[in-house]
Amino acid sequence: MKVLLVFAHPEPRSLNGALRDVAVKELESQGYEVRVSDLYADGWKSEVDRADFPSLDPQARLIPVAASKTAFDADTLTEDVKAEIGKLLWADILILQFPLWWFSMPAILKGWVDRVFAYGFAYGVGEHSDRRWGDRYGEGTLAGKRAMLIVTAGGWEEHYTPRGVNGPIDDLLFPINHGILYYPGYDVLPPFVVYKVDRFDASGFETAAEGLRERMRTLATTPPIPYRRQNGGDYLIPGMTLRPGLGDQEMSGFALHVNTEA
Amino acid sequence: MKVLLVFAHPEPRSLNGALRDVAVKELESQGYEVRVSDLYADGWKSEVDRADFPSLDPQARLIPVAASKTAFDADTLTEDVKAEIGKLLWADILILQFPLWWFSMPAILKGWVDRVFAYGFAYGVGEHSDRRWGDRYGEGTLAGKRAMLIVTAGGWEEHYTPRGVNGPIDDLLFPINHGILYYPGYDVLPPFVVYKVDRFDASGFETAAEGLRERMRTLATTPPIPYRRQNGGDYLIPGMTLRPGLGDQEMSGFALHVNTEA
Repeated sequence: MKVLLVFAHPEPRSLNGALRDVAVKELESQGYEVRVSDLYADGWKSEVDRADFPSLDPQARLIPVAASKTAFDADTLTEDVKAEIGKLLWADILILQFPLWWFSMPAILKGWVDRVFAYGFAYGVGEHSDRRWGDRYGEGTLAGKRAMLIVTAGGWEEHYTPRGVNGPIDDLLFPINHGILYYPGYDVLPPFVVYKVDRFDASGFETAAEGLRERMRTLATTPPIPYRRQNGGDYLIPGMTLRPGLGDQEMSGFALHVNTEA
Repeated sequence: MKVLLVFAHPEPRSLNGALRDVAVKELESQGYEVRVSDLYADGWKSEVDRADFPSLDPQARLIPVAASKTAFDADTLTEDVKAEIGKLLWADILILQFPLWWFSMPAILKGWVDRVFAYGFAYGVGEHSDRRWGDRYGEGTLAGKRAMLIVTAGGWEEHYTPRGVNGPIDDLLFPINHGILYYPGYDVLPPFVVYKVDRFDASGFETAAEGLRERMRTLATTPPIPYRRQNGGDYLIPGMTLRPGLGDQEMSGFALHVNTEA
């Protein structure tokens, strides 16, 4: 089994750097092949811009979606993006590791998603008809693979609980887990989140490290979050709203898209 | 009244560019002073890294939170960041305008937040005690000012409704509206969102433009989203969970933090 870990912290001597080393070591001791995309170390470019589409006529208006489609189809994406796409196709499991900055991923990692998740590769895939609305949300290029997040947060765990002031961590991560990872097909595992990281001591670190090792040992067997399949009949096409009768009728929000009866 | 519009699209000839011009023109015709931070045109740097903290000892470990605090206190942040902080203090109203990429903002705008929202300025402000948990969520440096999002989405509006497959747009934008804008004190107005933008014709554009003009005319009077105040008694300190009895007890998720009785 092969794992790609995408790492987005600027300091190798950080808690994130130490946790990454713990994860990689544990995975290798389990016999996994591991590759790491260290975005800061690699000088990853974060911005989708004209330079991403060298075949685009310099006078033409840049329409990112259209340019992405054209470049992916013609294999004229930039080499850095093509290398990451190759790694995603190579890996059975994708791990994104980052510190939670302003309740989301650091810009450099968002830029990795914005640039690597090309049209025709991660979206704009599959048939649109009265039967299917593309291959997405559990289907798509990366279907059959697994993905998970490793996240560090400065705040307290309680502040991220269902009634916590920041909002529940699962909801804060939904745009990533469901919108970025499940969308192109991944089975998404529950995230590994470490809290209060600004106040870590050696014993706090060892507890976190042991939790992370356990997650790495169970990477292939942990049940994924049971997000509903888009084309399995749960959603009306083309409105893509949840079929009446499914989920709590009084409920709104992200939790509706998890099938708790699965 | 003064407005800062932060613009995050790589193509000036885009729909976003046209909508920005509509907004600026309408605001100016209403007598607003308007400044635009055009992140792509300005070559904005997206990544928080060591170069952001020129006073940091080159041998020292980079701890972003600590480095941000030290640099803000000593006024040694980089000039580009200081200029943006100056604009935020100048403006009565902040508008962030961006295309929705992977259910969030483009990396370049996330990098503007990550870099400009320094410790001591946008977070790490105020007293932490058994009475208050810092000045945040409706209090803080930017309290008394207003903020709103202008967002374009390729997808259908129905897909972003309460039972839509993407998740409700208000929930998808909660990490930004509540976590980035309300956190340092802004009163956050409902967002202006335009859908299905890849299929726009002239009449679609005119409808969107007129809706945007109306929002610009009512910028000072539109009631903000009634997010709960952190220190007003609604949350238990220090756990920062919503006080029992407030909000629907069966409910979880972001909507709890909006006071629907306000």
